[in-house]
Amino acid sequence: MEPWRTAIATSDENTLRIRGYEITALMKLTFADTVFLLHRSRLPNANERRLLDAILVAVADHGSGAPSCATARLAASGNRQSLSAAVAAGILAIGDEHGGAGSACMELIAEGLELATAEKLSIDDAARRIAQSAKSEKRRLPGFGHRVHTAADPRTYFLFGTAEEAGVAGTGIEFMRALNDAIAQTIRPLPINIDGALAAVLFDLGFPPAFGKLVFIIGRVAGLTAEVAEEYAREKAMRIRIPVIYDGPEPREL
Amino acid sequence: MEPWRTAIATSDENTLRIRGYEITALMKLTFADTVFLLHRSRLPNANERRLLDAILVAVADHGSGAPSCATARLAASGNRQSLSAAVAAGILAIGDEHGGAGSACMELIAEGLELATAEKLSIDDAARRIAQSAKSEKRRLPGFGHRVHTAADPRTYFLFGTAEEAGVAGTGIEFMRALNDAIAQTIRPLPINIDGALAAVLFDLGFPPAFGKLVFIIGRVAGLTAEVAEEYAREKAMRIRIPVIYDGPEPREL
Amino acid sequence: MEPWRTAIATSDENTLRIRGYEITALMKLTFADTVFLLHRSRLPNANERRLLDAILVAVADHGSGAPSCATARLAASGNRQSLSAAVAAGILAIGDEHGGAGSACMELIAEGLELATAEKLSIDDAARRIAQSAKSEKRRLPGFGHRVHTAADPRTYFLFGTAEEAGVAGTGIEFMRALNDAIAQTIRPLPINIDGALAAVLFDLGFPPAFGKLVFIIGRVAGLTAEVAEEYAREKAMRIRIPVIYDGPEPREL
Amino acid sequence: MEPWRTAIATSDENTLRIRGYEITALMKLTFADTVFLLHRSRLPNANERRLLDAILVAVADHGSGAPSCATARLAASGNRQSLSAAVAAGILAIGDEHGGAGSACMELIAEGLELATAEKLSIDDAARRIAQSAKSEKRRLPGFGHRVHTAADPRTYFLFGTAEEAGVAGTGIEFMRALNDAIAQTIRPLPINIDGALAAVLFDLGFPPAFGKLVFIIGRVAGLTAEVAEEYAREKAMRIRIPVIYDGPEPREL
Repeated sequence: MEPWRTAIATSDENTLRIRGYEITALMKLTFADTVFLLHRSRLPNANERRLLDAILVAVADHGSGAPSCATARLAASGNRQSLSAAVAAGILAIGDEHGGAGSACMELIAEGLELATAEKLSIDDAARRIAQSAKSEKRRLPGFGHRVHTAADPRTYFLFGTAEEAGVAGTGIEFMRALNDAIAQTIRPLPINIDGALAAVLFDLGFPPAFGKLVFIIGRVAGLTAEVAEEYAREKAMRIRIPVIYDGPEPREL
Repeated sequence: MEPWRTAIATSDENTLRIRGYEITALMKLTFADTVFLLHRSRLPNANERRLLDAILVAVADHGSGAPSCATARLAASGNRQSLSAAVAAGILAIGDEHGGAGSACMELIAEGLELATAEKLSIDDAARRIAQSAKSEKRRLPGFGHRVHTAADPRTYFLFGTAEEAGVAGTGIEFMRALNDAIAQTIRPLPINIDGALAAVLFDLGFPPAFGKLVFIIGRVAGLTAEVAEEYAREKAMRIRIPVIYDGPEPREL
Repeated sequence: MEPWRTAIATSDENTLRIRGYEITALMKLTFADTVFLLHRSRLPNANERRLLDAILVAVADHGSGAPSCATARLAASGNRQSLSAAVAAGILAIGDEHGGAGSACMELIAEGLELATAEKLSIDDAARRIAQSAKSEKRRLPGFGHRVHTAADPRTYFLFGTAEEAGVAGTGIEFMRALNDAIAQTIRPLPINIDGALAAVLFDLGFPPAFGKLVFIIGRVAGLTAEVAEEYAREKAMRIRIPVIYDGPEPREL
Repeated sequence: MEPWRTAIATSDENTLRIRGYEITALMKLTFADTVFLLHRSRLPNANERRLLDAILVAVADHGSGAPSCATARLAASGNRQSLSAAVAAGILAIGDEHGGAGSACMELIAEGLELATAEKLSIDDAARRIAQSAKSEKRRLPGFGHRVHTAADPRTYFLFGTAEEAGVAGTGIEFMRALNDAIAQTIRPLPINIDGALAAVLFDLGFPPAFGKLVFIIGRVAGLTAEVAEEYAREKAMRIRIPVIYDGPEPREL
């Protein structure tokens, strides 16, 4: 078998380097620096790091009942031999529907800005077109609305405010604000949710869309480890049995 | 890298063999034959196959609320991009506590029979010793009792009856019956549950203890695939939110 | 929380039923019967069972180096606390690219037959249209060709022959044969591989496309359990280290 | 079903709190602060945060060939539908053997210090006893020695130096240094590896042993996400096929 190739990390008996930097040099910095470095092959500046930290914190946990946390706890309920099995089960509940709207919204932003460029539209006009076509196709736009937070999400204000203050706000945030207005006019007022906010900021920081999902996984794993530790510490194995009503075929004979 | 070594399967452009048999020859037989072959490197006789089939069926599914099934459905609730992710999540809930008692009971049977041999005891006496030490150490014996089925599990009758009828019942079943009596005298009447029944039969069929857990995984994956298919077909993504009461620190400031 | 609803299985303290049948009645039948029942809500006839058995066997294992088997062994190499973790890791390697072509091919068959109906074409003509558009769009058709087996896969002959002999061959097999000819004329001779064969047979048996992937998972889990058992039995933990060449940034200072 | 109980996080339509703190307040801090808060229910001071950051960075990645990274890449090779499936597969390779020695070493430290207290021994004498019994039982001590780094791991120097400089070094580091000396005298010089170093520091920071494994999972997920992103970006699906030699039964007939 040909050796695999990687540009991420290398180690031998004397040294361990990530993207060319000695691990002991990186250990003087923060974890967010290394997350940024692993994904961008350069270290962030202070503002980039601050925003990445804020996003990782924003998605860490918002309650044991969310699919990822509940899945981890259920797995821990039946299998106490492997902490990693329970954490991995939690991660498996993360997809386009749970934790994935950030990725989809980053693609939407890219699409909107490409439309503006291709058709020589203002960002406002491009946003209106996107909102109108979503309305006519009855398509839900990722990054807007929330099952619980019907008002604007305070995390959105924080991320946008920090990005603007730090001078890293760009066309991503501009487009999301424009789309927010366009949706309010075309459909109905829908707040930019945390997925939409992190999508705009990650877009302006230069991350690719897939990172919208990966950053959710990295941040959420902090919460999942705490959920699993709490399940082990406070609960007996097999304590969970979901109530179920059977509505299938009546009793029958072979 | 050195090539790995395996005694399981091999294929080239003309042929595919499992344990030396052409795949098209095996395709004339049943799946249980191939499961047996993969794990024992020989084909089963008709009675062995019949018992393995019965065990695989016995563990396939007993309700969507069990940890493995519920974990798979929860993962499917958040992540609709990968059927295998949801099935894998369900498997991760299988451990010593859920689906693992068969393995533990096979080890218990081996321990009991070794005790009988080492101490020149009858199987009945060895069983009594095991029951007494479990009582004095307040240790729960795997394979006995059930959260739901307080009476004897009908699956146990079926497996033991079939094994005896087929002439494959051996010291595994003998020991479990003896232990059942000893527990009733020493502790209180506790039925042999499905884990205990499959453990005794698999022991008599010559399987190693780990197979007690693996056979549960193989059988249960049939149920998990049906649970995931039903979740996709009948339910919207994100339909599940487990109710949670927060009892942690009061609201506080940094 | 509202109870969940299911039409699959139900159990109480006296009974356990799958799709309405008592588990002890099902335990007299084969595992393939229960797989069919779980997914179709009825028992198969002898021919349907024979074909499902053949498909489950066909995909069980074809070598430790395939992504699913190798992933399971690698996970077992680092984590010996949980058999289910290693098996689950193997399942996670199953997707559209590995084990998923059967599903895609079932969708292709449905598309081809709908085209025939909609445009009042013969099956041969519909197949030619599909082959031509695949050629002009440089799209690979699922179910044809193989990395290793360049000649026709013997499993394909077996499945088609058995289906025809049993009288269950229908428009699925007819369309795949027609498409095979059309591809040979339009592109170049490409054999129907095992994914194409099982897709055609499952289509004719009335299964939905998703089952093409689920049946691969059910069959392959038999192989994965054997691979993991062999890894535990024959190999030390941490024996595997994949050789890697680093081609990233040169050593650099902060 | 009774609602679950948690002391971790709570959210309603207006607010989201972790351990009582508003999420937007936490977003001003770093991710390491939130990791610490999630697991300890209080925020760290600057030195505690600095050490936790250093540990998270230390375990993030040390090459694509390690079991966790290679497992993630293999899963991505066969399944491109779910980033989370590939990351989860990588986490499943984490166990006592890979990433778990930190937990085991934290238990060893606790055991050594309890021995010192119970037997009124100095820490040096307790360490000597542990080393001697490991030698006579031919038991490997977790936290010492390395397959690649035969000299002292530079990460160990860094962590111990930082802990001492910061005034958080306690009996954990003291015991590990004593055990290092005792092993050199009793067995042979074996360096304290990164698992031993992080175990000593986490012990002195007051974390429970399970966190030794959980912190590895949190740190490593950063590397796994980068490995999976690189696999998607640089490699075709199904590019990996591990070379395997078959040494099982010869070709045979049914």
